Amino acid sequence: MKEMTRKSLLDAFAGESMAHMKYLAFSEVAEKEGYPGIAKLFKAIAYAEQVHATNHAKALGLIGTTQENLKEAAGGEHFEINEMYPAYDAIAKLQEEKLAERYIHYALEAEKVHEQMYNDALKDVEDNKDKEVDKVYVCPVCGYTAIGDLDFDKCPVCGVPADKFVEF
Amino acid sequence: MKEMTRKSLLDAFAGESMAHMKYLAFSEVAEKEGYPGIAKLFKAIAYAEQVHATNHAKALGLIGTTQENLKEAAGGEHFEINEMYPAYDAIAKLQEEKLAERYIHYALEAEKVHEQMYNDALKDVEDNKDKEVDKVYVCPVCGYTAIGDLDFDKCPVCGVPADKFVEF
Ligand SMILES: [Fe+2]
Ligand SMILES: [Fe+2]
Ligand SMILES: [Fe+2]
Ligand SMILES: [Fe+2]
Ligand SMILES: [Fe+2]
Ligand SMILES: [Fe+2]
Repeated sequence: MKEMTRKSLLDAFAGESMAHMKYLAFSEVAEKEGYPGIAKLFKAIAYAEQVHATNHAKALGLIGTTQENLKEAAGGEHFEINEMYPAYDAIAKLQEEKLAERYIHYALEAEKVHEQMYNDALKDVEDNKDKEVDKVYVCPVCGYTAIGDLDFDKCPVCGVPADKFVEF
Repeated sequence: MKEMTRKSLLDAFAGESMAHMKYLAFSEVAEKEGYPGIAKLFKAIAYAEQVHATNHAKALGLIGTTQENLKEAAGGEHFEINEMYPAYDAIAKLQEEKLAERYIHYALEAEKVHEQMYNDALKDVEDNKDKEVDKVYVCPVCGYTAIGDLDFDKCPVCGVPADKFVEF
């Protein structure tokens, strides 16, 4: 693909991904404010933006085999843990932006677990096995992620009660 | 919020939104390749990235009331219809990148419908009413969106059979 077309699609992929994300949040707000019709509309259009984003990702060659995808995912988490979030944490601390600092901390702690999980899964795929995953639980406040039964009463990162975790 | 912290969080919001989107696509690939455990892991971690993205969006003040959110959403669609996708379409045509051109066309056509839907819903909210929405259908190939019963056999944009549309 020619470079300027690639740049266009990368920008469109970012824009569609952010639109998808905003519409999901807007859907929740509409639900809470007593607009179920508008909540449904935001949810449906969020899915339409997912279709657009996924088309652009396919054209860009961002989606590979599972083995390639696990390497790509682990690499992204590694960058966030070792460069992106530490840099943004330093800026938030310097500027005394407490809320930003908290959300950066939440993300950084979860990404550490994600990188490990992806690398473990990659070893299994390299041995031609699936990863044995019974349940996966995710904290709805900070994104902390755990495989298997939860052995804590409160989220180890943000302290939310364990029974609020979302099960996959 | 101080400007450099704002820039950090905007970049992190974009990164988390794109990670969420990629992991959803990676989950589908894993499912198809016969790795249900890894498919579940990608899906759960996609949700964790949604939590991160939503936290950043909240700190940035990107999420308002439903009335504000509809204006923001309509404005985003308007930009994509009138500037972003026409510009990228011109580049893709110039560079004879057929696949990019097709996916840009798909998105542009859907965004036109989205802007109209958001503006209609905004009028209802300004009259203190919800939008009457029975069903919303979305094309899984091009993202074309329709409210109410489908009055066509094939998607008017991409030609996929109407019974493939996803119902919300
Ligand atoms: Fe879109
Ligand atoms: Fe992550
Ligand atoms: Fe948590
Ligand atoms: Fe994240
Ligand atoms: Fe749209
Ligand atoms: Fe379509």
